[in-house]
Amino acid sequence: MASAKTQPARGMRDFLPAEVRRREYVIGVVKQVYERYGFEPLETPAVENIETLLGKYGEEGNQLIFKILKRGVHESTGEADLALRYDLTVPLARLVAEHRNQLPKFFKRYQIQPVWRADRPARGRFREFYQCDVDVLGSRSMVVEAEICAAASDVLTSLGFKDFKVKLNHRLVLNGLLEQSGVPTSQQADALIALDKMDKTGPEGVAKELVARGIPGEAAVKLMHFFEGLAGAQRAAGLMELEAEEVAYNTGVLGRLVEFIGSHEQGARGIDELRQIMQFASASGISSRIKFDPTLARGLSYYTGAIMEISVKDLPGSLGGGGRYDNLVGMFAGEDIPACGFSLGLERIIVVMTEREMFPPALVDSPADVMVLIWYQKGKAEREEAAMDSLALARELRDSSLRIDVYPVRNVKMATQVGYAAKRNIPFVAFVGEDERQRNEVSVKDLRSGQQSTVQRDQVAQMIKCALDQPAEQATH
Amino acid sequence: MASAKTQPARGMRDFLPAEVRRREYVIGVVKQVYERYGFEPLETPAVENIETLLGKYGEEGNQLIFKILKRGVHESTGEADLALRYDLTVPLARLVAEHRNQLPKFFKRYQIQPVWRADRPARGRFREFYQCDVDVLGSRSMVVEAEICAAASDVLTSLGFKDFKVKLNHRLVLNGLLEQSGVPTSQQADALIALDKMDKTGPEGVAKELVARGIPGEAAVKLMHFFEGLAGAQRAAGLMELEAEEVAYNTGVLGRLVEFIGSHEQGARGIDELRQIMQFASASGISSRIKFDPTLARGLSYYTGAIMEISVKDLPGSLGGGGRYDNLVGMFAGEDIPACGFSLGLERIIVVMTEREMFPPALVDSPADVMVLIWYQKGKAEREEAAMDSLALARELRDSSLRIDVYPVRNVKMATQVGYAAKRNIPFVAFVGEDERQRNEVSVKDLRSGQQSTVQRDQVAQMIKCALDQPAEQATH
Repeated sequence: MASAKTQPARGMRDFLPAEVRRREYVIGVVKQVYERYGFEPLETPAVENIETLLGKYGEEGNQLIFKILKRGVHESTGEADLALRYDLTVPLARLVAEHRNQLPKFFKRYQIQPVWRADRPARGRFREFYQCDVDVLGSRSMVVEAEICAAASDVLTSLGFKDFKVKLNHRLVLNGLLEQSGVPTSQQADALIALDKMDKTGPEGVAKELVARGIPGEAAVKLMHFFEGLAGAQRAAGLMELEAEEVAYNTGVLGRLVEFIGSHEQGARGIDELRQIMQFASASGISSRIKFDPTLARGLSYYTGAIMEISVKDLPGSLGGGGRYDNLVGMFAGEDIPACGFSLGLERIIVVMTEREMFPPALVDSPADVMVLIWYQKGKAEREEAAMDSLALARELRDSSLRIDVYPVRNVKMATQVGYAAKRNIPFVAFVGEDERQRNEVSVKDLRSGQQSTVQRDQVAQMIKCALDQPAEQATH
Repeated sequence: MASAKTQPARGMRDFLPAEVRRREYVIGVVKQVYERYGFEPLETPAVENIETLLGKYGEEGNQLIFKILKRGVHESTGEADLALRYDLTVPLARLVAEHRNQLPKFFKRYQIQPVWRADRPARGRFREFYQCDVDVLGSRSMVVEAEICAAASDVLTSLGFKDFKVKLNHRLVLNGLLEQSGVPTSQQADALIALDKMDKTGPEGVAKELVARGIPGEAAVKLMHFFEGLAGAQRAAGLMELEAEEVAYNTGVLGRLVEFIGSHEQGARGIDELRQIMQFASASGISSRIKFDPTLARGLSYYTGAIMEISVKDLPGSLGGGGRYDNLVGMFAGEDIPACGFSLGLERIIVVMTEREMFPPALVDSPADVMVLIWYQKGKAEREEAAMDSLALARELRDSSLRIDVYPVRNVKMATQVGYAAKRNIPFVAFVGEDERQRNEVSVKDLRSGQQSTVQRDQVAQMIKCALDQPAEQATH
């Protein structure tokens, strides 16, 4: 028999049980924290009408959308009418427009679902990956930005992260910086692309790229002068692991921004919003996490106000990002509905947690608490009886919520069955031999300690539950 | 601003929070029960290479597969190289072939994921829907069939279903029935299609269709004679709500099958397997659920042994179905690996549970336990202070795991904020007015009873938690 190709499609992954459990652990924490912040669950279809997605992610985004062929007689036209979800934000905007009469005035939702992008696969970059989004719709208050930053921080703290920063900037501040430096409007997008690389290439790299992109020399110098001043302030502030240092640094950045662009009306509004976010973040207890970063630009074009990104030192790129987008919903709803959101990348969180060994050791990694063995018998009829007795025992134990497997073959020696359970990391085996059956007992072996005992049949569940709650005794033989 | 089309794609659905909570409730029960049977979680990508899926579901299936256009320069060819998952069984077969060295000898997995079919949408039939599958790979023992029937039954019982039946048949028994009736091999598939409609069209309809499909008259008569005998037995057995009646009926069916096809070697093997399943099901405590039904055929061509289907009276079609498929994995692995599985349809379960009002009334239907209001102030600076105080209170309450929302706008009268919380079904509001702030207190209002009290700030969480655990007091004014 010829064997067909068995790998998953390029850039896609199969998740075996241990990996699913780790993913579900992280998703469980994310959900719990988001619910603690009053977000409600929402789901949208994996497939959207193609016009819903096209034109929302820029030219590069359009290229990376998986498109679905029309069906039936239209299949041969080679045309696409549907596409796979590319992020969770555009479907949310569509949904809010569609269902706005059923939604509350302030709609806070979380959504944890996969998205698909036909990116070139690389380490940590997949074509199917999960986003964990929170968004608040209906309010222009900076209370929203603060709550969203606090929720995302709380997720990471709850997962055990101690060293992350929420980088914060504002689109209007960026506009102000570029205009006050004298970058012509037509070249501001180019300048932002260069600025966004400050982390990677440093100030010299950015300066070179500004020139290469044709930004007028005087404007480039003025802009770089501002950022060099900031970098100096950061060095002076040291490692900024103390909350007071971080607050002092952020206050310093605000001061320099006021100095540089305070007379630019929109820029000043952006600065005031950043100041408010800093205040509110301090009330929310996350002052030490917030770090103003005027070089942060974020790629997506739909942001209109504050933008944020969370990073850790040992991962290039970010664990997540977000911002305010007050106009996107209007593209669907015909009326503007203000909105702000944040998206955490499940895969990137898992990559770092795995490398740093942050998963709790107690995370279940066995398929069952008990494997019920089938007493080895020579005759067919006796085997059938033995299997029936094992199934009945399994039912009794399941009634007490234990996770019970039954060895699924009848003519196998007991030692083989025990060996299989041990290999599968199942802590207990239980079986009913002829003696046990006559005395209404069950033999139970703790495979962690090697200890075997005989227990009254109606006591087995209780005995195993107690033993599971205690650390295993050491083997004594 | 022009508003774009905002409906979800044809046959797809948006799930608002209340609906997500119902779906998650059902999925939670399914997972818990499956884990109690020793099944482990598994996930596969939504997208498969197109050749993995084509040719596995018959000609009709091929038509219903959503196909994904090649990307980049190949897009204009109109060719598809990927496709959306059509069920969870074929991807499992591929995965087992790919990862068999890492999988245990007996692999028991559950998988709860969406699948996509370009079917014509209808009531209860969607183009994106969830399947909840369990499969056991590696064993030919009927212990597996019994465990799978017990697990699926246990799921439904745990959800509150009391009236379902697991219909059971066997492919080899069907072969035996047709051959002993004298239906030529070339016409057996046609005869099965007719037989499968016994539920819908009754024996007369089936008889007509057999003739219309050109089955020789003598064979059709012989076959129908057998089924009319069975129907008589069923009427004699009454409503079969008692376990003993069901067992007697099943035993009777087995007896008639032995009589009719006992000399047909494969048929006899099928009968013996059904007998074993009945025995084992009785040990598993589900005798009253099992109902032999020799007319059950099931569409998919990959079944090789026992086949089963679960139905309730008020839903046409089934809540789920499955069977043994010993050859499918071999199409990928190059060596046969025996397998048996069952798939429950999430949407169909939810349809029935909704119509019958089976969801627990306590299912959370509010976005938060407490809404923290922002004390109304006239001045901008005072408002900012009030918001900071609310955010700080929210943080304190979240630390005790309460679900806390903060009213997300600052310049709103208190009555409006309270009204919004009440409308959103949030049981408590909390706020810090000027008096409260001076005395380090918080005002808490139970919106269910209308009762308002002032509480020491560090006592608020405890007080609300206690109140949530008790039924709300009646309003006293």
